[in-house]
Amino acid sequence: MTGRFITLEGGEGAGKSTQAALLVTALRAEGLEVVATREPGGTPGAEAIRALIVEGDPDRWSALTELLLVNAARADHVARLIRPALERGAWVVCDRYVDSTLAYQGAGKGVPREALIDQHRLATGNLWPDLTLVLDLPVDLGETRAIGRGRLDRFELTGGGFHDRVAKAFRASVVDDPARVRLIDATRDPASVAAAIWAEVEPLLA
Amino acid sequence: MTGRFITLEGGEGAGKSTQAALLVTALRAEGLEVVATREPGGTPGAEAIRALIVEGDPDRWSALTELLLVNAARADHVARLIRPALERGAWVVCDRYVDSTLAYQGAGKGVPREALIDQHRLATGNLWPDLTLVLDLPVDLGETRAIGRGRLDRFELTGGGFHDRVAKAFRASVVDDPARVRLIDATRDPASVAAAIWAEVEPLLA
Repeated sequence: MTGRFITLEGGEGAGKSTQAALLVTALRAEGLEVVATREPGGTPGAEAIRALIVEGDPDRWSALTELLLVNAARADHVARLIRPALERGAWVVCDRYVDSTLAYQGAGKGVPREALIDQHRLATGNLWPDLTLVLDLPVDLGETRAIGRGRLDRFELTGGGFHDRVAKAFRASVVDDPARVRLIDATRDPASVAAAIWAEVEPLLA
Repeated sequence: MTGRFITLEGGEGAGKSTQAALLVTALRAEGLEVVATREPGGTPGAEAIRALIVEGDPDRWSALTELLLVNAARADHVARLIRPALERGAWVVCDRYVDSTLAYQGAGKGVPREALIDQHRLATGNLWPDLTLVLDLPVDLGETRAIGRGRLDRFELTGGGFHDRVAKAFRASVVDDPARVRLIDATRDPASVAAAIWAEVEPLLA
């Protein structure tokens, strides 16, 4: 039996980490083995690559170099953690995955969609989530929350309309692939957001 | 006017670094601006990625992850050093480039050639060298020289016929693309090897 692969997506400050933790707890209460992970990162190798991706100046890497680093980390993560977990029947809850790449390196930084899809196929053996939850928040509210958390990373520091393009791209993922991707209103309190997420996840338990 | 792009290739211990330095000196004596560089690495970003690639156990990365890391480093190197140099008319002499990827990640570790070529096109905008010199040495002689230099890296530590497949792949590059790739007998003394290399390079000066 194969487990289910659920990803949480959205801009900075949308509450993905909090909601991922709540979802993992709820799934474990159902008696499931759940692997909680994140991207970029999730394995020792991918976390080492993550440090290169998120640290430094916004212009440290070109969009293309960044894309290749993201996919290098993802190749390690999928081969060594996600795919083995799914194959033994565990569920995987991942904070960010391919929709972040489509949004940040694609819409945000201009890498053509075809190159992104080709890379994803190569790096992951074309592994897509069973369900993706996009936590939707107005950009200015997300930025206020991210700033409140302290030190900003390379992506949080990128300006010039970048975060507007990213937010638009996450909403586009919902339109492009409605069977997989669901939009969750993240302006509400955490318990209400968690309930909305659970309403999408529960049918997968059947 | 555009400069020329020359790469040196070959297995461990074939004398690439020595010959690259001699070639750079000879080209500068002709009054040319010459950029001497190496892969993986060559720019601050690519050198940071290089550390991930060459350090650690032989099985630290899958062949696929390694390929993506190599191309991430190369994308940075080409965009920020090699292409700008060529465009201003400088010559570039690079110790390892795409033929090492075809040999190590391709023939050595089994990544299909089509994926390697697709990656190269994406990462470099399809930049191929004007001339590639493969320094050819029997594998056992190269290994003896590499061991004599001290601490071995991830590639030097890889066994199981890996270095035989790599050597065969370098020779295949010469057959596949004779207009670009030339085989140089590297068993001779450094001055004789340098003379053989110069005989291939000199026609490019015209």
